[in-house]
Amino acid sequence: MPDDRFHVYDTTLRDGAQQEGLNLTVVDKLAIARHLDGLGVGFIEGGWPGANPKDTEFFRRAQTELDLKHAQLAAFGATRRAGVKAADDPLVAALRESGAPVVTLVAKSHDRHVELALRTTLQENLAMIRDTVSHLRAEGQRVFLDAEHFFDGYASNPAYALEVLRTAAEAGASVIALCDTNGGMLPDELAEVVHAAVQTSARVGIHCHDDTGCAVANTLAAVKAGATHVQGCANGYGERSGNANLFTVVANLQLKRGFDLVPREALADMTRIAHAITEVTNVTPNSHAPYVGVSAFAHKAGLHASAIKVDPNLYQHIDPARVGNDMRMLVSDMAGRASVELKGRELGYELSPEISRELVNRVKDMESKGYTFEAADASFELLLRDTVAGERRRHFEVESWRVIVERTRGGELVSEATVKLHAKGERIVATGEGNGPVNALDRAVRLGLERLYPELAEVELTDFKVRILEGTHGTDAITRVLITSSDATGEWATVGVDENIIEASWQALEQAVTYGLVRAGHVAD
Amino acid sequence: MPDDRFHVYDTTLRDGAQQEGLNLTVVDKLAIARHLDGLGVGFIEGGWPGANPKDTEFFRRAQTELDLKHAQLAAFGATRRAGVKAADDPLVAALRESGAPVVTLVAKSHDRHVELALRTTLQENLAMIRDTVSHLRAEGQRVFLDAEHFFDGYASNPAYALEVLRTAAEAGASVIALCDTNGGMLPDELAEVVHAAVQTSARVGIHCHDDTGCAVANTLAAVKAGATHVQGCANGYGERSGNANLFTVVANLQLKRGFDLVPREALADMTRIAHAITEVTNVTPNSHAPYVGVSAFAHKAGLHASAIKVDPNLYQHIDPARVGNDMRMLVSDMAGRASVELKGRELGYELSPEISRELVNRVKDMESKGYTFEAADASFELLLRDTVAGERRRHFEVESWRVIVERTRGGELVSEATVKLHAKGERIVATGEGNGPVNALDRAVRLGLERLYPELAEVELTDFKVRILEGTHGTDAITRVLITSSDATGEWATVGVDENIIEASWQALEQAVTYGLVRAGHVAD
Repeated sequence: MPDDRFHVYDTTLRDGAQQEGLNLTVVDKLAIARHLDGLGVGFIEGGWPGANPKDTEFFRRAQTELDLKHAQLAAFGATRRAGVKAADDPLVAALRESGAPVVTLVAKSHDRHVELALRTTLQENLAMIRDTVSHLRAEGQRVFLDAEHFFDGYASNPAYALEVLRTAAEAGASVIALCDTNGGMLPDELAEVVHAAVQTSARVGIHCHDDTGCAVANTLAAVKAGATHVQGCANGYGERSGNANLFTVVANLQLKRGFDLVPREALADMTRIAHAITEVTNVTPNSHAPYVGVSAFAHKAGLHASAIKVDPNLYQHIDPARVGNDMRMLVSDMAGRASVELKGRELGYELSPEISRELVNRVKDMESKGYTFEAADASFELLLRDTVAGERRRHFEVESWRVIVERTRGGELVSEATVKLHAKGERIVATGEGNGPVNALDRAVRLGLERLYPELAEVELTDFKVRILEGTHGTDAITRVLITSSDATGEWATVGVDENIIEASWQALEQAVTYGLVRAGHVAD
Repeated sequence: MPDDRFHVYDTTLRDGAQQEGLNLTVVDKLAIARHLDGLGVGFIEGGWPGANPKDTEFFRRAQTELDLKHAQLAAFGATRRAGVKAADDPLVAALRESGAPVVTLVAKSHDRHVELALRTTLQENLAMIRDTVSHLRAEGQRVFLDAEHFFDGYASNPAYALEVLRTAAEAGASVIALCDTNGGMLPDELAEVVHAAVQTSARVGIHCHDDTGCAVANTLAAVKAGATHVQGCANGYGERSGNANLFTVVANLQLKRGFDLVPREALADMTRIAHAITEVTNVTPNSHAPYVGVSAFAHKAGLHASAIKVDPNLYQHIDPARVGNDMRMLVSDMAGRASVELKGRELGYELSPEISRELVNRVKDMESKGYTFEAADASFELLLRDTVAGERRRHFEVESWRVIVERTRGGELVSEATVKLHAKGERIVATGEGNGPVNALDRAVRLGLERLYPELAEVELTDFKVRILEGTHGTDAITRVLITSSDATGEWATVGVDENIIEASWQALEQAVTYGLVRAGHVAD
């Protein structure tokens, strides 16, 4: 349980999911919640149960499938409708029954929005807030309030905006987050309003959007003005220009303003976590992201190279290791060895300096072609084993494969794959059908090898992700395929890269099967 | 010639070009300079003549090939080397002979950097500044000074940092730009230092990097503290996390702080200019960029759609037309009638309530199957047209198709597709080869139809995105494919969904071609 005096509140799964093109399944949401918990955030807003069936399911599954170490879940929802009792409003009931210890109620604090969007009176809006907060508090939940359009509302009618704040606080809301919903504020103007809000003696939080490119600075300004609860999204996801990037906010507050928000070792894992979340969202990671971008500590060394070597801290604003990132010299190959050795040790290999160096070179070469090993441990381990062994060791050899996908005149869709392999001195020809080309290939390989390696019956392909790496050449682009497989005791991920999506899938499949055999104790021929 | 009282100074061609992966030719630089001049910036830093042959050539060609309306060119370079006269330093000579009316000299203002990187004394560094500024002034150029690492230098030795400032100003530098070279500052701390610098009575400028996500806010804070010269880069290009985004800075100052920096009609062209520059740099545009990103004014309408219809300004921080952008309504998840009607109007259709209702039902049905229309405007418009017409109208009928992807015994990778179509009373059989299955299908369709529809020669597939929708069923998962196509006048996106990735791709391709024909004015049979 984190310190309650200052809240790090993540809204990736709700407000972040408003980003154009971002569509999260329930499984995605559960995975992201685990990553955020690993970072040590205090609260994870999971969505709007009752309004959105997917979010209702998220909260249901979270109760058994999420084992959060740091974070508490918050269910987002609206105050009761005008003219009904909070206890009788089915949307309020969905919040009550979500199982979340915290409910974050969104409420209007802008007079025009009350009239135009809610179509009710200013007084009824206050009653809606008072009743809903009181009701949920009485039912045992902690309540936060998101004061929507607060800053524009304050500009329009400051007395009413502050009245909303007071009403919520008096009814028992423990935090009122002031939302710059349209994102148009600049830090100085925003800080003045936060200061006025803090004078009401309500506990104040801040929720910013990046429409002026100032979401992070606005959040910091609000904290300086007295806010003790910051909202934001992983990687700055969100509608329009995005929400405040929670990673940047946390790193700034913790490393530059002395706040103690997340465990030091979790902060040192932030870069990995930020990238792991992009694998779930399938949003191309922003290489320029502060702190966690791959370019964030990259230098075109030029004239400064020798000075950087003597004292790197003269050329970087923090030690990148504190957020799990690395300084990279774009012209040299200095980077990487330490992390490769570390990773090797993690997998149980003590690597000699020569092997480390060779492995770094192979990794760099492959990464420059689009491979990524961060989410493909099994591919990395196979590469490591090959490097240690000095050659590629195989459980089977591939002679050829062929995939046919056809829509027939009758409208039937047929996917069929044939593989020709050599293993244990035998030549194997096998054909599989599937509901798509990769499924067909997977079945063909398995069918061909299962007689020789019965353990493959246990191995299952459980996830398949595709990322197009270059967005400007159409189908000439490079395709990266990540495959997750599992057996009875665990799961592993492999990666393939090619301009041809089927070849990329095949690479990942071949490694997935190979790694499954390694796990089963088979030594390669 | 712009007002000299406040400078908008662009450094895209010099500091922006330090961005990882960004490589500009001389022709690129000339093109970007024209775009920046079109926006009305005051100064364009072209590069470092003498140190970089490409930059020397840029300044040479600029004299005859650039006809700047607003901007003046600035040549960037260092102060003279230690122990030589400014007049005798060949690098200083290159600045003098660049033909640029302004020279921006970079100088060390951090004591440790003087010792470690320049390897000279603090006194000699001051002499280098004094001599070089005086010499260039005497030769008739205007001189600005970039005080490198100023903020870290001020932290290390404030007296010396300010002495650098005074020395440059006394020698005749008309602006001293304080550089947060490592980018680690936050607005409040930065403003304090700027305030101290302004007290020296030197004219102060500001140059920020985005390593804390605060480059824009830092720039605004410096202006408030007395800086009257702002540096930044187009689209926030630059090393590591980038430089201050000059477009965001200008829009914030002009639209929210009342500065009169660029002509109003030029500001209203900013979105186009920002995108035109990405065409030159070949860097994928950031769709979330404040003000100019394609998502900057995009709304997942949902509940708010009807309120947005009544008063859009309640939901946007500025009128997007002021920066040449547009509000866009995304058709999404909770699509309601209001947002579908709004979207229809955007596309030029007045929909009757009955048609709207039917369209909403079709959208909802398809979204529940995994389709998404928010990133696939063309698919939505085809659906809308079909709904209005009461039936699916086709330019061609598909009899069957087949794709073969094969890795041969010799290791060769072959992708081949055959399509059988009917169009304009003819039966067409065409086969295409490609570097992958979708590319092969695309070529086959095009090859088959181009004789009947010559406009298809203009249509190009420019982007291809794949998303696996359910992460738990392996290759049984549903695949969503988004395809972006373009012709001479614009681009459009289509979507396909199926458990079979090839079928999903085919759906998106078929719509892409159909929409291309609609654009070309072909009425379906």
